[in-house]
Amino acid sequence: MKDAAVEAGEVSKGKVPRKGMKRGLSILDFVLRIFAGVATLASAVAMGTTQERLPFATQFVQFRAEFDDLPSFVFFVLANSIVCGYLVLSLILSIFHIVRTTAVKSRILLIILDVAMMSLVTAAASAAAAIVYIAHYGNPNANWFAICQQYNSFCERISGSLVGSFIAVAVFVILIIISAVSVSRQ
Amino acid sequence: MKDAAVEAGEVSKGKVPRKGMKRGLSILDFVLRIFAGVATLASAVAMGTTQERLPFATQFVQFRAEFDDLPSFVFFVLANSIVCGYLVLSLILSIFHIVRTTAVKSRILLIILDVAMMSLVTAAASAAAAIVYIAHYGNPNANWFAICQQYNSFCERISGSLVGSFIAVAVFVILIIISAVSVSRQ
Repeated sequence: MKDAAVEAGEVSKGKVPRKGMKRGLSILDFVLRIFAGVATLASAVAMGTTQERLPFATQFVQFRAEFDDLPSFVFFVLANSIVCGYLVLSLILSIFHIVRTTAVKSRILLIILDVAMMSLVTAAASAAAAIVYIAHYGNPNANWFAICQQYNSFCERISGSLVGSFIAVAVFVILIIISAVSVSRQ
Repeated sequence: MKDAAVEAGEVSKGKVPRKGMKRGLSILDFVLRIFAGVATLASAVAMGTTQERLPFATQFVQFRAEFDDLPSFVFFVLANSIVCGYLVLSLILSIFHIVRTTAVKSRILLIILDVAMMSLVTAAASAAAAIVYIAHYGNPNANWFAICQQYNSFCERISGSLVGSFIAVAVFVILIIISAVSVSRQ
């Protein structure tokens, strides 16, 4: 009995642990995709529902701030929504990789799409961050005022909504590394 | 003679073309790295040397614009310089891959570093682009004025310097795809 077990172990050595590792990586990939999807969805919703109306007004001016006053924030909401949709769809491929650990071409397809989506969400997060910075501190050289001095809650929301997006960027880096490692273990 | 040649061809079939393709990809990788390095260097220099002094002044105010008046542009110059330096250093690994086409671990290292550097240059380019947009069109909702109405040549330079950075982003996408394909061809 013992001999047989050892023999079986020897035959499968180098195949089973590698397959197990690849399946483990695929499951990690799946979990991370859900995590990043939730993060981008939260970012998009938090930014997309931001508005503030100040409790006072003059006869001619009503003090009101909305996220679509600034084009970078509109891009931010769009990009995060697109990436969230992509992450949900990519779960199909991720499940396929859990089942078929030897697939290579679909993993490369996933790397290509992940890289494209990572650029998109990085671009959106950075552009929004640049505008949030100006909203907070203004720029005396260009005579741009810090609107956050008036719109406190608006600024808190737009700053907070960046977090999810940057988390998604970090997760994408990990996802691409996981895919690259999986592809190399043939 | 003819038989021997056919035999040699048969023996090496499936090895030589694959090796040749991997070497071709490595050479393409090398050329693209030089190209992206030049693009980021051009971006950094173009942005870093931008300044404009208007030909008139009041008694108290001198009208002068420099790239480091805006923090996003400082980040842009720094990030492009770092990425340019990385691209030059990565040529060593790229040459190593042309010589040793079977290397796998170093290719994965290169994918990881490329992904990190791509995020950096994408973030810098987008943040700068968001600010350039406001400089051009201003934002009436936030009372930010379009400074480009005064600083024409300054705005032309900062807009132009974005191009190199976005070219680098596109090249990084291609580089990562090349590496992923190379890794998969074991």
